[in-house]
Amino acid sequence: MAGIQHKLSMLGIALPDAPKPVASYVPAKRTGNLLFISGQVPLEGGKMAFTGSVPSVVSPEQASEAARICAINALAVAKDALDGDLDRIEEIVRLGVFVASDPGFFGQPQVANGASDLMVELLGPAGRHARAAVGSVGLPLNATVEVEMILQIRS
Amino acid sequence: MAGIQHKLSMLGIALPDAPKPVASYVPAKRTGNLLFISGQVPLEGGKMAFTGSVPSVVSPEQASEAARICAINALAVAKDALDGDLDRIEEIVRLGVFVASDPGFFGQPQVANGASDLMVELLGPAGRHARAAVGSVGLPLNATVEVEMILQIRS
Amino acid sequence: MAGIQHKLSMLGIALPDAPKPVASYVPAKRTGNLLFISGQVPLEGGKMAFTGSVPSVVSPEQASEAARICAINALAVAKDALDGDLDRIEEIVRLGVFVASDPGFFGQPQVANGASDLMVELLGPAGRHARAAVGSVGLPLNATVEVEMILQIRS
Repeated sequence: MAGIQHKLSMLGIALPDAPKPVASYVPAKRTGNLLFISGQVPLEGGKMAFTGSVPSVVSPEQASEAARICAINALAVAKDALDGDLDRIEEIVRLGVFVASDPGFFGQPQVANGASDLMVELLGPAGRHARAAVGSVGLPLNATVEVEMILQIRS
Repeated sequence: MAGIQHKLSMLGIALPDAPKPVASYVPAKRTGNLLFISGQVPLEGGKMAFTGSVPSVVSPEQASEAARICAINALAVAKDALDGDLDRIEEIVRLGVFVASDPGFFGQPQVANGASDLMVELLGPAGRHARAAVGSVGLPLNATVEVEMILQIRS
Repeated sequence: MAGIQHKLSMLGIALPDAPKPVASYVPAKRTGNLLFISGQVPLEGGKMAFTGSVPSVVSPEQASEAARICAINALAVAKDALDGDLDRIEEIVRLGVFVASDPGFFGQPQVANGASDLMVELLGPAGRHARAAVGSVGLPLNATVEVEMILQIRS
């Protein structure tokens, strides 16, 4: 299959620079052939692209776009952790998706699909993953969505 | 020990058909000898058996039953992923349990026991697992509980 | 490096007795060289040190201290699971941090640092970890924070 980097280009997605560790936690940690990616928020160009809960402030459609940005940031983190070679990602194992939700909002799966669908666009069947999508009363920096990932890496 | 399928029968539990993948995420994903089961909700016969938060809409006792149904659905997913042979499950590693909670409800562990206890009924000591049980402001399709699992599989 | 137990002593931290399994779930479960620690709450001497949500009941600074207590309890669990030898912990892989949050509170990362920073104080670079920190509408026993961990163990 065409490389992940190539597919990103075809989709017009430029990965941002990965965030640098600023604290005791780090953007990614490897154990064996699993790479754990820390919860990513929809930062774009250093600014939060979507803040506030769904649907009072952010529509489900916009929140799905926010989830996609989280996933792009997770890939940027993975690329940095994998010495620039995204094709060392073998499988997407699990996504954890937290959606800032008003009471009464139950559309977390549709929001999470913004992240999930990108994985399959980029990796094909290897991009399919287990997932938990849940509502949260509030997320860091008032982010609309937070996405964490577990990736399987080629050894 | 008697097989898991046999114990299910003795408990009068018929596993439903596993949900088929309808999106980029899948019900189960294997990496090495770990099987990640996606977050399961208390669907029974295609209908949500318990909707709404605890305790205003659903009592803690009912929510515990909802958690048990989530666990049954997770087993159905595992069976499908393991070519129909539940006895390939070697250990239950972790349960993540999200409980749709009203502000002021703090009984998530009792709710989660509905899923946890079933694991031990079926697998004995191998069914004991690490667990995180937390409250959620809202879950997919207004489910009362969502349960995800990590299983260790015989290689 | 000096042992983890020694560093705990230098920090004046005495690990409590690990909680004993009282249910179908257990404080820790090992799979391969990974040790999953169940969600820990800020119990001290059998009493919850911090209850209530942030910031209406508990300040962010106090909640960070609560997260540190959760992390200490997680280490106590790990020590018990590792036959008393904390130096069998090789790497901290992931922390999941749930913060009981009022609507409008978005400072979960600062709260979670109470747990994360202790890991690095004790283990140095090996203590750095992936992390997801999110808000929760309510946690078991009205705990202010719940922290779960994945550790990599020396084989």
